[in-house]
Amino acid sequence: MADLLVVGSVALDTVQTPFGKVQEALGGSATYFSYCASFFTQVRLVATIGEDFPGSHIKLLTDRGVDVSGLKTSHGRTFRWAGEYGYDLNEARTLDTQLNVFADFKPVLDERLRRMPYLFLANIDPDLQLDVLGQMAERPRLVALDTMNFWIQGKREALLRVLGEVDVVTINDAEARQLAGEPNLIKAARAIERMGPSTVVVKRGEYGAVMVNNGAFFVVPAYPLESVYDPTGAGDTFAGGFVGYLARAEKLDRATMRRAMVHGSVMASFTVEDFSLNRLTRLSAQEIEARVAAFHDLVRLEA
Amino acid sequence: MADLLVVGSVALDTVQTPFGKVQEALGGSATYFSYCASFFTQVRLVATIGEDFPGSHIKLLTDRGVDVSGLKTSHGRTFRWAGEYGYDLNEARTLDTQLNVFADFKPVLDERLRRMPYLFLANIDPDLQLDVLGQMAERPRLVALDTMNFWIQGKREALLRVLGEVDVVTINDAEARQLAGEPNLIKAARAIERMGPSTVVVKRGEYGAVMVNNGAFFVVPAYPLESVYDPTGAGDTFAGGFVGYLARAEKLDRATMRRAMVHGSVMASFTVEDFSLNRLTRLSAQEIEARVAAFHDLVRLEA
Repeated sequence: MADLLVVGSVALDTVQTPFGKVQEALGGSATYFSYCASFFTQVRLVATIGEDFPGSHIKLLTDRGVDVSGLKTSHGRTFRWAGEYGYDLNEARTLDTQLNVFADFKPVLDERLRRMPYLFLANIDPDLQLDVLGQMAERPRLVALDTMNFWIQGKREALLRVLGEVDVVTINDAEARQLAGEPNLIKAARAIERMGPSTVVVKRGEYGAVMVNNGAFFVVPAYPLESVYDPTGAGDTFAGGFVGYLARAEKLDRATMRRAMVHGSVMASFTVEDFSLNRLTRLSAQEIEARVAAFHDLVRLEA
Repeated sequence: MADLLVVGSVALDTVQTPFGKVQEALGGSATYFSYCASFFTQVRLVATIGEDFPGSHIKLLTDRGVDVSGLKTSHGRTFRWAGEYGYDLNEARTLDTQLNVFADFKPVLDERLRRMPYLFLANIDPDLQLDVLGQMAERPRLVALDTMNFWIQGKREALLRVLGEVDVVTINDAEARQLAGEPNLIKAARAIERMGPSTVVVKRGEYGAVMVNNGAFFVVPAYPLESVYDPTGAGDTFAGGFVGYLARAEKLDRATMRRAMVHGSVMASFTVEDFSLNRLTRLSAQEIEARVAAFHDLVRLEA
């Protein structure tokens, strides 16, 4: 089991779906990622929050053993995001974004964090991602990165630079097509692989995810759920399950990578069953194991 | 290996995609289905064509051993469909439909066809599907059915009646949601199962397909393709591979059903690699086997 450092955003989310609404609930890419990965390994979180951030949210993370010594409280208000989903639940419509303290986020790693063996660069400015990588005292054994349309469009050069330095990229399908400039998803994934990462994980929402790993494809479906309440954070918990599992396994062979994909899909399936991190806060290791077993059954070809 | 009867449409399709165009090419649900199923079992086709139907198209079918004794030439022109696809290739925009002789299609089965053990009711008026079922001298061992939004909306009662009589329904995801009146696909599949069929196969285009079989779910992805030229007929060839494989196996156990799903996905993956049936006409049994093996590798979790 290897320590896993994550650098990203912590936010307060206001989300409306056809099935309900939450106001200023705990959110943010690094939050979802670290909470989820904490089921598999020791997670250390680097992010920024405002003075208004509820202590109860921090307690949720520390209760799961997440190291929050890198969570800095800055002068001002916490990053806020508001969005809504229609019945198809596939794409959020952003209603409001208030960057607040996140606008001045400059991650600084202390001596110990610079030596973490597994690193996840959550969806932040690729220049910051590069800066974090540059702070590492030695090259981590695995560096994974997530990004989004905003950076693909506005910071393409910096993004390509950091992509050339990482092992794994997680990205959603529309963003993969945008990044590669290629409508065919398989060609797009191969094109992104040529940008540097030896593993490209393309997240497809309710359809699961595809991985290209050293040239070979692997597909996992999403777990079939009768009730999906809020897809917010599904991609980040997928990444948390995926990278968290890899950090626990400390192996990168083909079978481990594939099992990591299943764990990513399983963790995302729990996340969407409730708003914010609510389902994850009620989640047990036994439930994870049971759903992984059910997942195997879902795709098993042999009798 | 059991004989497989298919009743449906034979058409001349004019299709435009970003990658090319064909004019009055061989198409129709029963055409795609029977050509594809002929790789697995003896297929007998019941459909209607006009006097203008090219003999070369009939020869394509007979060269594959399809029994076309039930293919009736009627006075008039053949059914024509014209459509186009954008870059996402997911949904056709219909430009023109000329039912022609298909408007008066009244399938009549001869004594021999009434005793076929496997029956596929391709996408036609559910009243005709019921009529065909009623003509069978004895209940076939397996009856499968496909339908579409047009009948779900306009002939719901007849459709529900025939759904109560079949074993398998194949339907695409949007139509499954429409038929069940339920946005959640998993709930929709379960609702359709309660309408009668013990097996519900929901086709999801580039994302593969989901099967509910006696209450248990199974998911197959679409085979990852770098070049997709024309998705027309993908759903019908999926059904052809699926039901054709079942008719060859003459078993309906869980492992056979799952292998049938893989064969459906594999056959659909060939279809979309070229316009009309062009890729299928160059297809060998060896290529099918190789792609089935590649497919197993694509989803295999074990090392």
